[in-house]
Amino acid sequence: MRLSAAFRSASRRLPVGARCVPRNSSLLVSATQRNLQVGNHRVLVRTASSTGGQTSEAAVKFRKQPTRGDGSASEHAIREVIQKSRQELSQLCQENIAIKPLLAIIQMSEDDHLLQINKKMAAEVGLSIMEISLPVTCTEDELLEEVLRVNEESGVHAVYLYLPPSCTSSRLLNSIHTHKDIDGVCAVSVGHVVAGDSSRSFIPPQARAVMELLSRHDASLEGKTAILLGSEGSVGLALQCLMEKAGMAVLKCQPGNTSLQKQLLEADAVVVLERSPSLLHPHCLKPGAVLISCSLNQSECFAGVGGVAVSSGDEVAHLSAAFRMQNAVQSVSLWAERQRYQPWRLRPLKLQPLSPVPSDILISRAQSPKPIGRLAQEIGLLEEELEPYGRTKAKVQLSILDRLQDTPNGKYVIVAGITPTPLGEGKSTVTIGLVQALSAHLGLNAFACLRQPSQGPTFGVKGGAAGGGYAQVIPMEEFNLHLTGDIHAITAANNLLAAAVDARILHEASQSDMALYRRLVPSVNGVRRFAPIQLDRLQRLGITHTDPAALTPEEVNRFVRLNIDPDRVTWQRVVDTNDRFLRRITVGQAATEKGHARQAQFDIAVSSEIMAILALADDLTDMRRRLGCMVVGSSRTGTPITADDLGVTGALAVLMKDAIKPTLMQTLEGTPVFVHAGPFANIAHGNSSVIADKLALKLVGEEGYVVTEAGFGADIGMEKFFNIKCRASGLRPSVCVLVATVRALKMHGGGPNVSAGVPLPKEYTQENLELVASGCSNLKKQIEIAHLFGVPVVVALNVFKTDSQAELDLVCSIAKDSGAAAAVPCHHWSLGGRGSVELANAVKAASHQENNFRFLYDLQMPIVEKIRTIAQKVYGAHDVELSPEAQHKIDYYSQQGYGSLPICMAKTHLSLSHMPDKKGVPTGFILPIRDVRASIGAGFIYPLVGTMSTMPGLPTRPCFYDIDLDPVTQEIQGLF
Amino acid sequence: MRLSAAFRSASRRLPVGARCVPRNSSLLVSATQRNLQVGNHRVLVRTASSTGGQTSEAAVKFRKQPTRGDGSASEHAIREVIQKSRQELSQLCQENIAIKPLLAIIQMSEDDHLLQINKKMAAEVGLSIMEISLPVTCTEDELLEEVLRVNEESGVHAVYLYLPPSCTSSRLLNSIHTHKDIDGVCAVSVGHVVAGDSSRSFIPPQARAVMELLSRHDASLEGKTAILLGSEGSVGLALQCLMEKAGMAVLKCQPGNTSLQKQLLEADAVVVLERSPSLLHPHCLKPGAVLISCSLNQSECFAGVGGVAVSSGDEVAHLSAAFRMQNAVQSVSLWAERQRYQPWRLRPLKLQPLSPVPSDILISRAQSPKPIGRLAQEIGLLEEELEPYGRTKAKVQLSILDRLQDTPNGKYVIVAGITPTPLGEGKSTVTIGLVQALSAHLGLNAFACLRQPSQGPTFGVKGGAAGGGYAQVIPMEEFNLHLTGDIHAITAANNLLAAAVDARILHEASQSDMALYRRLVPSVNGVRRFAPIQLDRLQRLGITHTDPAALTPEEVNRFVRLNIDPDRVTWQRVVDTNDRFLRRITVGQAATEKGHARQAQFDIAVSSEIMAILALADDLTDMRRRLGCMVVGSSRTGTPITADDLGVTGALAVLMKDAIKPTLMQTLEGTPVFVHAGPFANIAHGNSSVIADKLALKLVGEEGYVVTEAGFGADIGMEKFFNIKCRASGLRPSVCVLVATVRALKMHGGGPNVSAGVPLPKEYTQENLELVASGCSNLKKQIEIAHLFGVPVVVALNVFKTDSQAELDLVCSIAKDSGAAAAVPCHHWSLGGRGSVELANAVKAASHQENNFRFLYDLQMPIVEKIRTIAQKVYGAHDVELSPEAQHKIDYYSQQGYGSLPICMAKTHLSLSHMPDKKGVPTGFILPIRDVRASIGAGFIYPLVGTMSTMPGLPTRPCFYDIDLDPVTQEIQGLF
Repeated sequence: MRLSAAFRSASRRLPVGARCVPRNSSLLVSATQRNLQVGNHRVLVRTASSTGGQTSEAAVKFRKQPTRGDGSASEHAIREVIQKSRQELSQLCQENIAIKPLLAIIQMSEDDHLLQINKKMAAEVGLSIMEISLPVTCTEDELLEEVLRVNEESGVHAVYLYLPPSCTSSRLLNSIHTHKDIDGVCAVSVGHVVAGDSSRSFIPPQARAVMELLSRHDASLEGKTAILLGSEGSVGLALQCLMEKAGMAVLKCQPGNTSLQKQLLEADAVVVLERSPSLLHPHCLKPGAVLISCSLNQSECFAGVGGVAVSSGDEVAHLSAAFRMQNAVQSVSLWAERQRYQPWRLRPLKLQPLSPVPSDILISRAQSPKPIGRLAQEIGLLEEELEPYGRTKAKVQLSILDRLQDTPNGKYVIVAGITPTPLGEGKSTVTIGLVQALSAHLGLNAFACLRQPSQGPTFGVKGGAAGGGYAQVIPMEEFNLHLTGDIHAITAANNLLAAAVDARILHEASQSDMALYRRLVPSVNGVRRFAPIQLDRLQRLGITHTDPAALTPEEVNRFVRLNIDPDRVTWQRVVDTNDRFLRRITVGQAATEKGHARQAQFDIAVSSEIMAILALADDLTDMRRRLGCMVVGSSRTGTPITADDLGVTGALAVLMKDAIKPTLMQTLEGTPVFVHAGPFANIAHGNSSVIADKLALKLVGEEGYVVTEAGFGADIGMEKFFNIKCRASGLRPSVCVLVATVRALKMHGGGPNVSAGVPLPKEYTQENLELVASGCSNLKKQIEIAHLFGVPVVVALNVFKTDSQAELDLVCSIAKDSGAAAAVPCHHWSLGGRGSVELANAVKAASHQENNFRFLYDLQMPIVEKIRTIAQKVYGAHDVELSPEAQHKIDYYSQQGYGSLPICMAKTHLSLSHMPDKKGVPTGFILPIRDVRASIGAGFIYPLVGTMSTMPGLPTRPCFYDIDLDPVTQEIQGLF
Repeated sequence: MRLSAAFRSASRRLPVGARCVPRNSSLLVSATQRNLQVGNHRVLVRTASSTGGQTSEAAVKFRKQPTRGDGSASEHAIREVIQKSRQELSQLCQENIAIKPLLAIIQMSEDDHLLQINKKMAAEVGLSIMEISLPVTCTEDELLEEVLRVNEESGVHAVYLYLPPSCTSSRLLNSIHTHKDIDGVCAVSVGHVVAGDSSRSFIPPQARAVMELLSRHDASLEGKTAILLGSEGSVGLALQCLMEKAGMAVLKCQPGNTSLQKQLLEADAVVVLERSPSLLHPHCLKPGAVLISCSLNQSECFAGVGGVAVSSGDEVAHLSAAFRMQNAVQSVSLWAERQRYQPWRLRPLKLQPLSPVPSDILISRAQSPKPIGRLAQEIGLLEEELEPYGRTKAKVQLSILDRLQDTPNGKYVIVAGITPTPLGEGKSTVTIGLVQALSAHLGLNAFACLRQPSQGPTFGVKGGAAGGGYAQVIPMEEFNLHLTGDIHAITAANNLLAAAVDARILHEASQSDMALYRRLVPSVNGVRRFAPIQLDRLQRLGITHTDPAALTPEEVNRFVRLNIDPDRVTWQRVVDTNDRFLRRITVGQAATEKGHARQAQFDIAVSSEIMAILALADDLTDMRRRLGCMVVGSSRTGTPITADDLGVTGALAVLMKDAIKPTLMQTLEGTPVFVHAGPFANIAHGNSSVIADKLALKLVGEEGYVVTEAGFGADIGMEKFFNIKCRASGLRPSVCVLVATVRALKMHGGGPNVSAGVPLPKEYTQENLELVASGCSNLKKQIEIAHLFGVPVVVALNVFKTDSQAELDLVCSIAKDSGAAAAVPCHHWSLGGRGSVELANAVKAASHQENNFRFLYDLQMPIVEKIRTIAQKVYGAHDVELSPEAQHKIDYYSQQGYGSLPICMAKTHLSLSHMPDKKGVPTGFILPIRDVRASIGAGFIYPLVGTMSTMPGLPTRPCFYDIDLDPVTQEIQGLF
């Protein structure tokens, strides 16, 4: 939360009726004073003048006491402290305009002289005051409640409890947050002060005042003896520690101690911490000694002390007030410091890889993840920026982007792959292994940004998707199941929109214009009013009235009738289950739907356009805008119908309000991972979210690395990463890591078919340099594709245990000859980060290479030209061929003004061409464009090359047969 | 987590390979010693003998030093401390067999003499030791990692850092958890000790040892002078505080202080905190003074000190070790104390009700909820029992039930209602107002247990369901939206099962027996094996083979063919959206489904049987069992097909593993609420979960109150609460609160129709005693129904502003005449808890009344007799009439062995009869039973009286038009 937001929320959280006056709303203290009676206590917010110097300095002059001490010396000290604090605060505010310094004072009585001094000094220094006045009948619990409230109030920087001693129980004092405890009274503060660790808490102002007075009385304290009389809790202890640090011998005793008289005569300094009337006789002190009383009204007792330098309680109180304000300024300064970028203090988890490598779930379970709050702290997240979901997952707030807006981004690494076998070549494990190596082994800040997997395949064929071996996200079962509910939120939003479409068709079909209008703009307590989203629709329709009564019948007709063509509804329902029987269905067959049955389908949830929007949105505003633009179908006259037209945009945004926050998890080695969004890689762009990448780039800092993965082969996922995602985000990649396997290269070199569930032919398990050499054509082509975008390439060769050294050497050598900046074998699967150190070093080196990133095509090119550019330059096609349907759609989208959107090709990932069985580098083919569709909210046009399944099925024996839960240990079995 | 579980997890969390040896696994220390080399450090777990007394006492005898002090006195002290500690620990272990006392020692070298002493004393006392040996090359971060690990390890009770002084940075010391910091070295411990608050942390053992030695040397310390030489951090400070507390004057100084010599001559006691060689000459001390050295090997310096009582460093070290073990025992004792029931320290939130009452969302937003962790702490939950989901919601772990198994349950209050108008009469607000009154105004522990609302209606007609006015659950938007994802989990589980049914039908139709068998029991690495869930099926089929090769073709056929009849599939898919077009659909129309299209439907998610199971399950084991029993349809030969038959039970349990934990939220007054499960009130039993009620009953303690709500009128929700929920849970209700409104009573008295969206007729807004008096017949009948179960009734009259005093008085008077224990008007909506104090007092009084709870029917009665009993005794029907379909189903269920399940009537809530327009108390009617269905997993038979809609629709103008999100403040608008 930025401070402005914090401040807003501050005013909201005050008891009903009270509010904070912003610091700059007035120049004079008196003018901005507000005094509100709230229930049984009064909250008042007093705002300092913004210059801080307009209050007369005379205001803080204290009552001159009859004293032989150097009153003017302390006056001088006060002026110095105040002036220094004012300057410091003023500079802080200049550096960070978001700072609204606020001191909360909790008091139980009207202002007395001492409180007035403190408040005046606060005003002089430039601190605003939130004054919380409680009745004297207030209980300890009520006091505690107020302290906890100001603790939690992120707009309050410092807290001053001005309460009768009878009220300040240790429970109350200990409840003050250390960061705000400017009087240094809570146990943690005391502990830090006595441990000499004053950087993390505040020294009690009274102790500082006494030390200041002592040093002004006497040049050197080293070797002197001091007596502390009485024990004022934290003040006495702090004072003693300060004195010891200054080299004094300190005797602390209660006034009643029998040996006192003798000691007094020998002491160089005597500090009276609490009122001890008529104890000190004029001649009981050593001549030249210093006597300091911390007790107000004590001074008269010392009036006649001869030959002794005396500082009165009043002097101490004034100087303490000044130091209190200095502490408060310091608390603001520390607050500002905490807001700035924090270097990481990552403590990786140790990994002891076993051989042979156990199953993924066993590896995951053997490692105990750090509590997520600890990881967050290590990487510089503030506590209030984290929303834990259980112990191992947390959402993070987007406000981090505001807080760290001045921090330079880290390096941005994209992991793509060569054209894979149907088994996949390990992009996820390479991604995770790489960050494990960078963070845990090279000591660099590194973040992995991963897609959230669909839950459907977890129970179907594929199993989990959290990496594998010793390169995993843990706990893998959390990663693979509900996570933090984002996909469920997408499902809910997607299906609410779908229900709204059909319900609207039904209601329009069964009601007159006026009946519809009466219901859409109902009279509430006799008043008819358009909802804001309806006003937007009126504007789109060119209707300027805002009074419902003013519309003409024709305007009413246009307003109430979306006139959706049931045969041209493109919005489909989704579930996150592999449910093949929902691939084609007929809906609306109940009698209540009055014959409006129509054909429809369910897709898997992650294929929803809302998922693509989540992945591409920049912030909440952008996401809401994109949701509103989603086209659900068209009217009978061909007008696109949007979520905005249906009035459902706000509700969709509400359903998605938490989903927009990325989820923080960790790798097996305890390094951070963002999991966020997981759009399809064919009908969508197949990349994790822009927001997660942006957050991670700030968090790793300038010297850090963010590694993000693109779906499918480089020809698809990487091309979309560059042309769609980087365009949306404005981010520029530093390095492309291209994942290859000997297995896939052999396939491209002419090896036999590879398919899931069937043992690998022997070509793949025995050395075969010929197949490898020949298959490297695909690798070379994919390197060239990356170079089209001007990005350096590091080839990561994901090593399998059957690969021979000669095969590995051959691939690396060809890769380098093909222009790769480096090519290295990776052993992350069997060794974790340690197995990817070479890759990490290569990526580090490449990230400092020259980088000439450029897009492949200009958005203003005609749709068909953009498609042709991708087909020819990336896929190696001779040309494209459009079906009449495709041509028609392109014309329609161009007419509707969607012509300048980027292109998201829906093509098989198993070949560079559209023909899955054409391995290596097919050439000369004509790419057929069967159909063209559009995701207007997500912001791309997607041409269909062949048919794309958007709903997987369950096999005869789905994974779920092996999955179970131990009811006692709550451990999950059978996930892989 | 019970300690046993904690201990299990403890061993799991150790670095791979190490494990804890349970304390009672051996009697001798040496026999149970394990020494494991783990990575770069060694973890060793040494287990004390369980009697604690078998090690020779001689073992702790220390090297006798040449000293003139009373060595035997300190030996005596050591024996005393050790013996006392052993006894205390032994008693703790007897009282709580789950305790496995464990002291973690983090060391960087082999055991030296001092460490040996400590370990021997630990063994003598009966503490097990987890020894973590780190290499001397270990970094601060690695040390920190180990400290954090033992902090988080719930099985470790105490931590002893035995490290070279150069390694003990304040960062490291401060990282030790206060509860385990038996050396009192972290800042918080120091702070507490110096503040004199030793109940919350430990006094450094060395300080205790010095004080013990001082007091053994000298009878009284009062008025004596002591000098502390050197500063040993926390020890010196603690010592000084203890000395001051004992009335001594304490001079603390560095050995180099110039005025020291004179001071030394006068001191009664001198304590040397750090090695200061050759400083103390024989004659520099006052004769008769006490000299104590805390430094080992320092004693020789004092060898010749004359006339002075000397305690050597060795003595101090031995005695310190004894006190360290005493602290460790104390830490075990405090741990055990924390495991016990904790009295609440609830700090209610203040409420300042406004008039007129603002909208629900404005009221909710004006109140700032407590951080959920704080609320959890206030009501005695342990930190590890909480799983936060953001800042205002948290799931709680079921292990609380084990921890508090000996705590008596609180009072159990059920809130039901009279037959309502379609607008509802405010059972939820009464429930919330009642707990607000009990907790925040009467100071009693009270918990509300509420149902989680479906998200569908939030965007449809009804709006939110978090209560209303000043009796709400906050934040209401969290309550009404995804909450913690339970309904999403139910949807996922429900739909996975549905997909499995259809996929199985398809696969069976297209494959031979042997093909199916080959796929269902595949060869993995050459081995074929049945999954455990398949072995269960074999057992149900009476097939005894466990080797897949052993089955006969006939057995294979029976095993692989579920032979599901597509026309008799009863399991439906669900969505949590009001989607009327899914009420009747055709699925399986894609070509890939090969003509297996069939009619089906989607229901709203909360109507899933899995929701009813969640509400009735006792624990994870019970839930898993119930999920497996769910019947999804029947085979062509009439056999019921279950989730177990489909092999999907484990996966369903995995999907539901978090949903089983209730969600903790709070009311507007900051009192606790469990939100958990929300089954339909017609086709299911309409009550929140058994688990939440059980947890709450433990948490409130014997004198506390749990208030839970039953859906619909008392004739439905309450009857099912008693006959179904109380039967499942074994819990017995104390009081029934019956909610009535003047509005509903007028309706029953003959007032005009009341319907949503239409202004109320004037009869309802003007006084009309006649209608009220006549309508009280319904109230009287509902009171009689509650009395059928032997439970006292308190009538809560939910007051509307249009009700006249005479009307209120009349209702209360009739209610009391009808046998209610009390009848009181409630003003919670406008005043919050304060408006329900009278109700709270009445409930409190009634809960102490005699209570003769009994079920209405015996489970062994025939199904039709159970139905008839409910119809006649509760509804007032003359008899029931079964359709042939109903009769057929009853026969079928009885045959299948489901005859002894309880009955869950699916009847309208708008009348005591089946006819919604028959208000008051209809009599003489015949209740028609149209059909009978069964939820075998949930465990009830549900007869259908009329048609029940299981899928709501969206109106022309759904609520969503008004719902929006402010993208900047993230505040939700338009929810109500």
